[in-house]
Amino acid sequence: MPPDRPVILTGDRTTGPLHLGHYVGSLRNRVALQSSHRQFLLLADAQALTDNADDPARVSRNVVEVALDYLAVGIDPAVTTICVQSALPALAELTMLYLSLVTVARLERNPTIKDEIQARGFGRDIPAGFLCYPAAQAADITAFKATLVPVGEDQVPMIEQTNEIVRRLNRQAGRAVLPEAKALVPRHGRLPGVDGRAKMSKSQGNAIPLSASDAEIDAAVHRMYTDPDHLRASDPGRVEGNVVFTYLDAFDPDAVAVEALKRDYRRGGLGDVALKRRLSGLLRDLIGPIRERRAALARDRDGVIDVLRAGTGRARALTRATRDEIHAGLGLFAWA
Amino acid sequence: MPPDRPVILTGDRTTGPLHLGHYVGSLRNRVALQSSHRQFLLLADAQALTDNADDPARVSRNVVEVALDYLAVGIDPAVTTICVQSALPALAELTMLYLSLVTVARLERNPTIKDEIQARGFGRDIPAGFLCYPAAQAADITAFKATLVPVGEDQVPMIEQTNEIVRRLNRQAGRAVLPEAKALVPRHGRLPGVDGRAKMSKSQGNAIPLSASDAEIDAAVHRMYTDPDHLRASDPGRVEGNVVFTYLDAFDPDAVAVEALKRDYRRGGLGDVALKRRLSGLLRDLIGPIRERRAALARDRDGVIDVLRAGTGRARALTRATRDEIHAGLGLFAWA
Repeated sequence: MPPDRPVILTGDRTTGPLHLGHYVGSLRNRVALQSSHRQFLLLADAQALTDNADDPARVSRNVVEVALDYLAVGIDPAVTTICVQSALPALAELTMLYLSLVTVARLERNPTIKDEIQARGFGRDIPAGFLCYPAAQAADITAFKATLVPVGEDQVPMIEQTNEIVRRLNRQAGRAVLPEAKALVPRHGRLPGVDGRAKMSKSQGNAIPLSASDAEIDAAVHRMYTDPDHLRASDPGRVEGNVVFTYLDAFDPDAVAVEALKRDYRRGGLGDVALKRRLSGLLRDLIGPIRERRAALARDRDGVIDVLRAGTGRARALTRATRDEIHAGLGLFAWA
Repeated sequence: MPPDRPVILTGDRTTGPLHLGHYVGSLRNRVALQSSHRQFLLLADAQALTDNADDPARVSRNVVEVALDYLAVGIDPAVTTICVQSALPALAELTMLYLSLVTVARLERNPTIKDEIQARGFGRDIPAGFLCYPAAQAADITAFKATLVPVGEDQVPMIEQTNEIVRRLNRQAGRAVLPEAKALVPRHGRLPGVDGRAKMSKSQGNAIPLSASDAEIDAAVHRMYTDPDHLRASDPGRVEGNVVFTYLDAFDPDAVAVEALKRDYRRGGLGDVALKRRLSGLLRDLIGPIRERRAALARDRDGVIDVLRAGTGRARALTRATRDEIHAGLGLFAWA
């Protein structure tokens, strides 16, 4: 692959297997982007530890689980480098360096951190590693010299903070050692949970895992939130906020047919059962092959570990080289 | 050397050459301890960067300057391992891990950090790396499995915070992966500056460098603060707060003679000039050989770099091994 393709860095915290929300929000984009971009997927176990320090084994175990999800949805390790964050010391080294370049006040003003602190009820008792997250993310992005970072709308301030650090470093070095990165905000927003809550999350019990059986898919679709006032098929129904339609928008390849269904539903005469049957069929067709590939890969755990070791080895060389360039740019002596 | 000797970790921030205050406060103790302990000296360039990010070249340049001071005073690299912090990635990795184990509130409550924030007038605009210093120091200490850490009285809370992290990690691992460390507070307190201010500091212009010439030593002693009311040699003089006596206490090997001088001075009849001549002679005898060894070593800069590369190589293997033990203790998979 030509080295001048745009470099993408993305990844996931390794706190549990991925689900359909991840598939819509990121995984399928990554599969599409891997042929036209130089893509790195970071299994962010070190980052996951910052707020899971009481259960490190869980974080470690899920490195392979998330890797299985990647491979099962079609990430090709021959073109996408999959690597393990905790095995890339240069990321920690750069994080420490960047922590010298940002103030505590600036970290606390980061809107993403502010929101997360509030959402998790941390107050002043946040783990220090969590407050340092923007510097760690800047280290991840810059170590791979990524120019495109797929993030949700709420994570855009993180990219801005990364670029502040990049500019500060480049100014200090007197030349552009590092490129600035652009946020790549996906067209499709977040997939809601099956209960209609904004976020699909395993811990909230409203997620459909990528390993779901047909029966589990049917059960999840069956309990999906539709329109509580739509009691009989003949009643007019509401499409807005109706989870089944949100999912059809996300998964049905036939947009024209979905628009027709919306018209019928609004007018009355289209029942939830028929709609849900359609969605169930679509999700079975999507998840079935993923589930089967995932199960086959899971039987060869050593093979998956080999894939991760190979990707991590490549990433280690690359991130070390970037660290050395940054050190040289700052006039630091090369001791190693 | 038997591996069961107590392990000492100590070192210096590389912001400038060392001076007589360092000699009294730490260097001469290190020379004495190196034969009975397993001693590691850390050239803390990464730590120095946390509040010198605008002048990284200065931090880097002074790595060799401080190493020259070590070797000139008699640190023997065959028994003491001298190593460069920024070339030990495991220290950054452990710092990041420990930042997950401490809260921001706990870091801010650390008395040493609190005092330093106030002394430097940082307020909320402290570099984040500076707030994270206790976790970084815990990483340094534990990576070498140090059990003794020579520190000033004001740094004792840092060792306490290190031991909190050690206990937390050992509890998590279910066994004593890491030893706790003890502070080794030197018998001699801090050497005051030649102007009588509590702290000798190059930036305050009240320091005697270890490379001072005889003329520079005489000039520094000449301007030493004595007793402003002691105008004539025949007047009674004060010994307390008299810098010349503080220095005689620190450097004169003949304690009985110094007590006699104090009596004479208090009674009247002993002039500042005679006293200062005695101190000048002592300091010339002490600094002269150090200065000459330092100058000779400085002419073989590559030789010094070789010493640091060898020490850093040994330290790298050791700190990586500790990181691996900690990761294993936490149940993290060994990817590297």
